[in-house]
Amino acid sequence: MPLKPTSPVEVAPHLTSRHALRVRFCETDLMGIVHHAGYLGYFEVGRVEWLRQRGVSYLEWATRGFHLPVVEARLRYRKPARFDDLITIETTCAETTRVTVRFRYRVLRGAELLCEGETRLACVGDDLAPKRFPEDVTRVLLSPEVGAEPPPAPPCAPTAR
Amino acid sequence: MPLKPTSPVEVAPHLTSRHALRVRFCETDLMGIVHHAGYLGYFEVGRVEWLRQRGVSYLEWATRGFHLPVVEARLRYRKPARFDDLITIETTCAETTRVTVRFRYRVLRGAELLCEGETRLACVGDDLAPKRFPEDVTRVLLSPEVGAEPPPAPPCAPTAR
Amino acid sequence: MPLKPTSPVEVAPHLTSRHALRVRFCETDLMGIVHHAGYLGYFEVGRVEWLRQRGVSYLEWATRGFHLPVVEARLRYRKPARFDDLITIETTCAETTRVTVRFRYRVLRGAELLCEGETRLACVGDDLAPKRFPEDVTRVLLSPEVGAEPPPAPPCAPTAR
Amino acid sequence: MPLKPTSPVEVAPHLTSRHALRVRFCETDLMGIVHHAGYLGYFEVGRVEWLRQRGVSYLEWATRGFHLPVVEARLRYRKPARFDDLITIETTCAETTRVTVRFRYRVLRGAELLCEGETRLACVGDDLAPKRFPEDVTRVLLSPEVGAEPPPAPPCAPTAR
Repeated sequence: MPLKPTSPVEVAPHLTSRHALRVRFCETDLMGIVHHAGYLGYFEVGRVEWLRQRGVSYLEWATRGFHLPVVEARLRYRKPARFDDLITIETTCAETTRVTVRFRYRVLRGAELLCEGETRLACVGDDLAPKRFPEDVTRVLLSPEVGAEPPPAPPCAPTAR
Repeated sequence: MPLKPTSPVEVAPHLTSRHALRVRFCETDLMGIVHHAGYLGYFEVGRVEWLRQRGVSYLEWATRGFHLPVVEARLRYRKPARFDDLITIETTCAETTRVTVRFRYRVLRGAELLCEGETRLACVGDDLAPKRFPEDVTRVLLSPEVGAEPPPAPPCAPTAR
Repeated sequence: MPLKPTSPVEVAPHLTSRHALRVRFCETDLMGIVHHAGYLGYFEVGRVEWLRQRGVSYLEWATRGFHLPVVEARLRYRKPARFDDLITIETTCAETTRVTVRFRYRVLRGAELLCEGETRLACVGDDLAPKRFPEDVTRVLLSPEVGAEPPPAPPCAPTAR
Repeated sequence: MPLKPTSPVEVAPHLTSRHALRVRFCETDLMGIVHHAGYLGYFEVGRVEWLRQRGVSYLEWATRGFHLPVVEARLRYRKPARFDDLITIETTCAETTRVTVRFRYRVLRGAELLCEGETRLACVGDDLAPKRFPEDVTRVLLSPEVGAEPPPAPPCAPTAR
């Protein structure tokens, strides 16, 4: 049973952000392409920048004793990225609960889709024990980029489950 | 929609092999645990050793012009592995078609399950274009470890789809 | 006998370029700082960008059959870089011979020196056998950034040794 | 001025240990060889195993609040290591002072020297501030492998400087 294609993303566009980066030499392998584990690093950069675009430094959360370890990940590799490619990581906050958050990612070279995937992260404390997201964190996870238009008011307000 | 738990592995036990390794310092991150991308590297070691335990060097295949890029991966992180842990990678060849192969993995510390996952790999040539597995490769993917008891004859012989 | 401090750089300032990047989470280790091997990756980014700032893509050279493997490296770690730090890699082409080139690097956080080092690279062909730098490559290695002021004419023209 | 060749190692043979490992696919780059930063990881494995062969877990030291960050490193790359190579890391404790220790390394494939280098490490506390090696640590740094013949008594007893 092959992995199912991810269901279509039906999230508000204000929950998506983009970040560009250039593929490094040391990220390639002997097939001459980016090693498949490298995309988890790209996803990570994507979500750190997603937060920064909402005025939050992930580092700050870590200092306050909140960590977000990845508890699940899936990736589909479409086309290989190569050394020196300028790629875009498109990151979407797809779902927030009281204790977890799910992000989706697409890695693009221009309009070409190279890789897509998702990660689920749990909120834990310094001791790695589960912890509820504080109010302000949940608010950030539902917000648009700083300086962007606020999203239109929905028929019924979205809430973290 | 969180990722579904992987369906139970119903593969013949002769398709599973184990390989032990020790977590390196450089594989950890600032949370003090193995970085989540590192497990894709462990899985890779697991399948290279799975092949070696069947008398095959993956390198040899590469020299003959066969490569096996990962086209899909999924991982569930259960408990963190830490620096200097002695871990076991349990690798199972879960499904073989004419052009792809799926492996499942469990990373264990003693009896504790730390991470499980699977990868689907495609057979491609030096030009990264899809290619059928040659007969001898398919045979290896269905075989037990060298020197191990052959698996009992099944009611009807297993064939690559 | 501890490593000697690197002798003062006495190279023309037009042979120095700067590139900024942000430290990634996956580049840290359990000491909470950037793993010491990561700086060799930063140096590599530094010299790829040094070339780009002179109108050259290292990838292009690779396509023409020129590669520049590192044959020597040395690093002095002064202060730790940390996750999310915005750092600058200052890269200087310090010496060019017919078959090797030496780059020096300083990694800075603002005015703070975090790490300094150098690498010597050899010119080799696709078969990894030594090869002379072609004329145009040597010219690039002695040139200022594209669009920058040309360096003042020296008393006697510099030549690759 | 190219880096000088390292001066000949004149340390007692009981301060050298060996550890074998196999090159992983993910350690290669698009030149088809082990990426040059990877050797710092191999050196690190070498010194962790050097300690283990003397009955010490580096992890234990970390738990007691001793860390050994690398403050200097140098490497000479002789021949490339490749995917699936079985290599040996030969690690020698070359010099111990009250606050630093210097290790030398040779990475071999059979009798072939692939890479050699050295690292200087400083003793620091949890706060990364310099700290003297405790007595028992210094003793370990001058000792042979557990179970090995003790070194012959020197004319005058070696002491940590």
